[in-house]
Amino acid sequence: MTTVPVSHRFVRYRLPSNGPAKLGLVDNEELSITEILGYTDLFKLIEVHPNLAPDYQFATGQTSSLKAAEILAPLPGRDILIANIAHAAEFHKSGFDSSDKNEQPDFPVLFTKRATSIIAPGKSIYTHPNVTESPDYEGELGIIIGKAGLAVPKDDAWAHVWGAVIINDVTARERQRDHKQFYIGKSLDTFCPMGPYVVPSSSLAFDKLHLMTTVNGEVRQSQNTSELIFDVPTLIATASMGISIQPGDVIATGTPMGVGMGMSPKVWLKDGDLVEISIPPLGTLSNPVTSTAPGLCSLSAQ
Amino acid sequence: MTTVPVSHRFVRYRLPSNGPAKLGLVDNEELSITEILGYTDLFKLIEVHPNLAPDYQFATGQTSSLKAAEILAPLPGRDILIANIAHAAEFHKSGFDSSDKNEQPDFPVLFTKRATSIIAPGKSIYTHPNVTESPDYEGELGIIIGKAGLAVPKDDAWAHVWGAVIINDVTARERQRDHKQFYIGKSLDTFCPMGPYVVPSSSLAFDKLHLMTTVNGEVRQSQNTSELIFDVPTLIATASMGISIQPGDVIATGTPMGVGMGMSPKVWLKDGDLVEISIPPLGTLSNPVTSTAPGLCSLSAQ
Repeated sequence: MTTVPVSHRFVRYRLPSNGPAKLGLVDNEELSITEILGYTDLFKLIEVHPNLAPDYQFATGQTSSLKAAEILAPLPGRDILIANIAHAAEFHKSGFDSSDKNEQPDFPVLFTKRATSIIAPGKSIYTHPNVTESPDYEGELGIIIGKAGLAVPKDDAWAHVWGAVIINDVTARERQRDHKQFYIGKSLDTFCPMGPYVVPSSSLAFDKLHLMTTVNGEVRQSQNTSELIFDVPTLIATASMGISIQPGDVIATGTPMGVGMGMSPKVWLKDGDLVEISIPPLGTLSNPVTSTAPGLCSLSAQ
Repeated sequence: MTTVPVSHRFVRYRLPSNGPAKLGLVDNEELSITEILGYTDLFKLIEVHPNLAPDYQFATGQTSSLKAAEILAPLPGRDILIANIAHAAEFHKSGFDSSDKNEQPDFPVLFTKRATSIIAPGKSIYTHPNVTESPDYEGELGIIIGKAGLAVPKDDAWAHVWGAVIINDVTARERQRDHKQFYIGKSLDTFCPMGPYVVPSSSLAFDKLHLMTTVNGEVRQSQNTSELIFDVPTLIATASMGISIQPGDVIATGTPMGVGMGMSPKVWLKDGDLVEISIPPLGTLSNPVTSTAPGLCSLSAQ
């Protein structure tokens, strides 16, 4: 694994023995976590530090082994915005597109995934065999808003980006199609893996981020995240056009070519699969797939 | 005004002098509010009392004049689910339907309004002249979930309904059309007036609720809320099909015929209008319309 020097690489975690959730900083070698004192919630930290300087020193506590910690979803409890369809052409040809007659949308398409669908790295994506026959992955770069904004001009958009996180926008394809609006097909329980790390803009070269998705080790998606139909400033300008964007909002920026829907024949996620999405230095979001129902999900368990 | 005897009619409010938000009970004559002690948040109250008995006695404090209080949005801060299109035929004929080729959808359509769009009774709906030329009202009955549930069978659906509240699902019609997914057109700041009262199921005859919407006193919508394409059990079964519904979730159940889009010629909301939606005993949700921008909205101000 390449070592990427990063000033702040945040992780939300819990130590063994099921203690309280903590915020920590992961070292560059990804071996240890050092607890940040005074914060247990990344939303709060972002509000207090909307423009985090790369040399800012947090008060820190105990250092623990990364391997021994349970990594949690970094920004739980709030519905996630999903923007753009980078794979619009692929989507249109698939026969699962309910809403768009053109291969390229004229306007950015925005919708939400319910907060209940968020799961941590390592947790299982449930296939929902009673609800869908076509669960599919979508590896995406998630932009995190720092400074609140309304009608943000494109020229000023990057000033509102606090950092980034990996999102797997898991989708039930026939539900996405049949219910016209994407909400149900995108919001099934466990359909929003998020994490593992949150890295602030000051440590990211956004034009050089490369996303790779593998299923059982086979590369399915591999693309620079800057190759999107609508770029990040266009998305932020659109998302904030008449809606006040808030600190901690996550906007996932669309997925590259290579989802299961676009393969011939189409390949859906199934029990026993392992989906891994990497964007250095945001880490690798790794989630197994299961056909065993997890039961009722609750926001407080994230 | 008809006096409807109701065991619990909840209101979230603030007394003059800009004190903290409180929860209270409104008397049957709608003259006074009596503070409920131990709760300042209706989400919390619903979690603690998922099955509120009609004779339950809360510990109460000061009684104040209803007129003197500032009424707040009862369930702020969480994205609102909107289900169903009761006016599907009207919508299809309007030319603003991006997603549905049939007059009657085969599956319930579910989408969300962003939490930032929620405003209190009496607050102004902003017309967003730079974003839309077609702001429109939609008077709706909002169902409030009490007991969390997943894959709730229709037969058991009513057991998950805690109560109800009025929602105005204000919509920018060309944005709803152009962005394909409804999120932007439905989520503009101030586009989700909510309230004034929350009434638990034990005090409601759901099959007898009548919704009336007026604009500047002219009746535009007048219908029993049970005349929906998809009934409440179907909506709850659909919403919870693969998604764990949570205590305090609001599902607005679709609007009757009579929105501005359906008139000939179409009539949009404009500066100086007054929109009033009544569903006894949930009260009257009254909001003026303004073309004066409110500035950045924040969740904590709701």
